[in-house]
Amino acid sequence: MFRKILYPTDFSDVSKIAIEYIRQLKESGVEEILVFHVIDERDLQFSYLYVFDEYSHDKDLKQKLKDEATKKLVEIKDKLKNCGFKITYRIEFGIPLKEILKAEQKEDISMIIIGSHGKSNVEEMLLGSVAEKVVRKCKKPVLVVKR
Amino acid sequence: MFRKILYPTDFSDVSKIAIEYIRQLKESGVEEILVFHVIDERDLQFSYLYVFDEYSHDKDLKQKLKDEATKKLVEIKDKLKNCGFKITYRIEFGIPLKEILKAEQKEDISMIIIGSHGKSNVEEMLLGSVAEKVVRKCKKPVLVVKR
Repeated sequence: MFRKILYPTDFSDVSKIAIEYIRQLKESGVEEILVFHVIDERDLQFSYLYVFDEYSHDKDLKQKLKDEATKKLVEIKDKLKNCGFKITYRIEFGIPLKEILKAEQKEDISMIIIGSHGKSNVEEMLLGSVAEKVVRKCKKPVLVVKR
Repeated sequence: MFRKILYPTDFSDVSKIAIEYIRQLKESGVEEILVFHVIDERDLQFSYLYVFDEYSHDKDLKQKLKDEATKKLVEIKDKLKNCGFKITYRIEFGIPLKEILKAEQKEDISMIIIGSHGKSNVEEMLLGSVAEKVVRKCKKPVLVVKR
């Protein structure tokens, strides 16, 4: 029922609160955590327009973002490592909601644990948070952790 | 972290699935369950208009609905009684979302567990489910259980 947790994180403060809940769920049968980060391709497009002059920077930028995300994912892995879970992490480029739903389908996920709000607060206030959309669209139970 | 669970139910099939998750959470520290049912006052108004001729039926109708809900709440209590939780139940008249948020504030709730969809599927498809609104408005973490 709680065997494998998909934990999407954008490294926001509220998404970090989720880590404590994951820890606590150990006793209810959680065995495996997939820590999942999506680099939002819409932010990349923004960077191309305003920060970089040439599209040749594409690979550099992507690699830099991936390296930064990897560091943070390793930190999360370290925080959870003493709990006895099997922990894997993954980075995808794309639209966060779509990638989360794809991961849910591909992997044998039991539950999703997600922070109620991400970093882009203004956008989320207007259009609804990624968490709300995950609750609406996914097939598995979702634990939404709040600020 | 999971000590006291608020479990709002409209007795729909999906809300019953939540019972299994509550059971499983015992090991993560759940001690107390508040099983909570709201009799939607908007449905009552509908009944006055179309079913009853006189407002004097008000008390009868309310009592009847309350008796039916009580039976179902006792059934849920029975299903959970072997788990060693302290279980209480409560019935309120009002708008489900509002009453759930009130209960969250008044009681020392650790987490809310709720079914993703209630009985009024068509309305929910148009306006969003009670669960989605609870996720948006409440202060505590919410586990949304799916069909």
